[in-house]
Amino acid sequence: MQPLRVTLGERSYPIHVGAGLIGEAALYAPFAKGRRVAVVTSSVVKPLYLERVQGALAAAGATPLPIVIEDGEQAKRWQTLDRIFDALLGARLGRDSLLVALGGGVVGDVTGFAAATYQRGVPYLQVPTTLLAQVDSSVGGKTAINHARGKNMVGAFHQPLAVIADVATLDTLPERELKAGLAEVIKHGLILDGVFLAWLEGNVAKLLARERSALERAVRRSCELKAQVVGADERESGARAILNFGHTFGHAIELGAGYGEWLHGEAVAAGMVMAAELSARAGTLPRADVARVRALLASAGLPVSGPRFDTERYLELMQGDKKAAGGRLRFILLDALGKASVHGEVDSQLVRQSIAAALQ
Amino acid sequence: MQPLRVTLGERSYPIHVGAGLIGEAALYAPFAKGRRVAVVTSSVVKPLYLERVQGALAAAGATPLPIVIEDGEQAKRWQTLDRIFDALLGARLGRDSLLVALGGGVVGDVTGFAAATYQRGVPYLQVPTTLLAQVDSSVGGKTAINHARGKNMVGAFHQPLAVIADVATLDTLPERELKAGLAEVIKHGLILDGVFLAWLEGNVAKLLARERSALERAVRRSCELKAQVVGADERESGARAILNFGHTFGHAIELGAGYGEWLHGEAVAAGMVMAAELSARAGTLPRADVARVRALLASAGLPVSGPRFDTERYLELMQGDKKAAGGRLRFILLDALGKASVHGEVDSQLVRQSIAAALQ
Repeated sequence: MQPLRVTLGERSYPIHVGAGLIGEAALYAPFAKGRRVAVVTSSVVKPLYLERVQGALAAAGATPLPIVIEDGEQAKRWQTLDRIFDALLGARLGRDSLLVALGGGVVGDVTGFAAATYQRGVPYLQVPTTLLAQVDSSVGGKTAINHARGKNMVGAFHQPLAVIADVATLDTLPERELKAGLAEVIKHGLILDGVFLAWLEGNVAKLLARERSALERAVRRSCELKAQVVGADERESGARAILNFGHTFGHAIELGAGYGEWLHGEAVAAGMVMAAELSARAGTLPRADVARVRALLASAGLPVSGPRFDTERYLELMQGDKKAAGGRLRFILLDALGKASVHGEVDSQLVRQSIAAALQ
Repeated sequence: MQPLRVTLGERSYPIHVGAGLIGEAALYAPFAKGRRVAVVTSSVVKPLYLERVQGALAAAGATPLPIVIEDGEQAKRWQTLDRIFDALLGARLGRDSLLVALGGGVVGDVTGFAAATYQRGVPYLQVPTTLLAQVDSSVGGKTAINHARGKNMVGAFHQPLAVIADVATLDTLPERELKAGLAEVIKHGLILDGVFLAWLEGNVAKLLARERSALERAVRRSCELKAQVVGADERESGARAILNFGHTFGHAIELGAGYGEWLHGEAVAAGMVMAAELSARAGTLPRADVARVRALLASAGLPVSGPRFDTERYLELMQGDKKAAGGRLRFILLDALGKASVHGEVDSQLVRQSIAAALQ
């Protein structure tokens, strides 16, 4: 099947979506030829898929250097980058190197940032193996590590040469992570495509059962929607902000509960309910549609309410997050199911009510 | 006077050269307006110029946050960046911030890299206060920190919004650093402009005496030449390599002597003599011109010979440097005084002879 494409001038790239792609040498060959290649993966993904990717790269003519980093969010720090740089320099990989990010969002973020900064920038491929990474983080070139004062505070926009999203790798994904990934799929429908949203409502069960064709369609359409947004606003100076629908509330949940307690997708799910509630209260979305949002998320096994903190605590967490980063609090509201826009001025009383309407 | 310009499409920027510029609010105003501003400087430069720059920024409408880093090459490491990020986040500077790099090459490299990666990239100004930084490192967008396995191994290409080169700040520059900066000025003449080179031969004494008009002319022409090269090859994929004239030999000297023993410009001076010797031996440069190179460097108070290591040690150091970075050994040779080109294949026997011809 034809790959999708992120259109960004000379930084344009294809997104391949399908089952069994990680073993296809032909997908790597155009990028691996004549380059030294390093595959960065996590300790969890390594035993599952590293061998196949190395085999495909070998068939494409490369002798890849494997670099294994620790699993989980705590890997998004300087020490991990430094170990990657040390391995690359130790093996004498030069400016003509290619990095391959094999794993979930953390591996993609860290490897992408390593690629952005190693010898002032080398190219990389994204080979995402979680649903979240396939539909969201591997597309768009956002790379980062965390800082003690905030997540993703240090990073770069660095587009990959290609994304290879193999839905067969989702077979090994823990159920909870599959569901969390669906939150971002649903988000793409909510903010950009009512028809896709309706399709999701009818196919959640198939997605949860990991039916290949349903997963492929969901990943493909999600990537297509995200690619459109990224193509229009690479560096998030405007339109790209709508991808943060539900995320301001979601970050407050993640932060308040302690990072790791809630998966990102779970927090975003509850956050999207709050944002939908806010849209209804602000008069941009019919109330009946809020019920549809809740029903779809619930049918995907996702939380539709946040932890029972005081609403003031939520506001504090939301503002703290933004303030540290020097940003103002803005809200992405739904204008309809399948359409979203950014609102700078929202009555904080409505925000409080919307949070209260979606507490456990 | 009209500023020079680095022409790089939407990343184009002006280079202002003159005496007393760091205190001119009008030069900062177009960039500082509506932004939060942080001035990064070193402990040595702070007492000399921070107050004036802060005053100019205040007059331009900003309330700058000062961030002082340690002085010297050892500041080019992650810990320094992390402290800068911590200060920026602590003061809640956001993506609309502006960083100002006030100091020499180290401050410029570190601040530029911090700007390239803080919240995935914020703009910055270069306000170089050493001759080396004014004529070389502040122009062209190369930013980096060091890695245990090599200098400048981690960084980014991130062009500044403007360069403000105030030649009056050279009044406080230690004599040895002034001379070291002249090495790069002479390099620009050697590789790109025979007329400028002849002017330098006639005006070295004035430059050493820090005559303002001579310094201004030398800095201006150096920046102009470098800007042309950078404009033609921003990311060093080809033509920009000639700026490394003398640097392969120079790096071997710096590395072999232990970093810090030789100033970069001093090592480059001796390296340029070796490269000129090599050019003569390879038949690209008349022998008489090698004598001119030596004479000019000597008249600038710069070394014209390297430390008395074995020539094999030189080759080892040169290759080690390149190999760790995954590059092949190439040489920049002079085709004439004022013209240089890259040579991939050079007889190593000639390289040995050229080194031996320029040992202390």
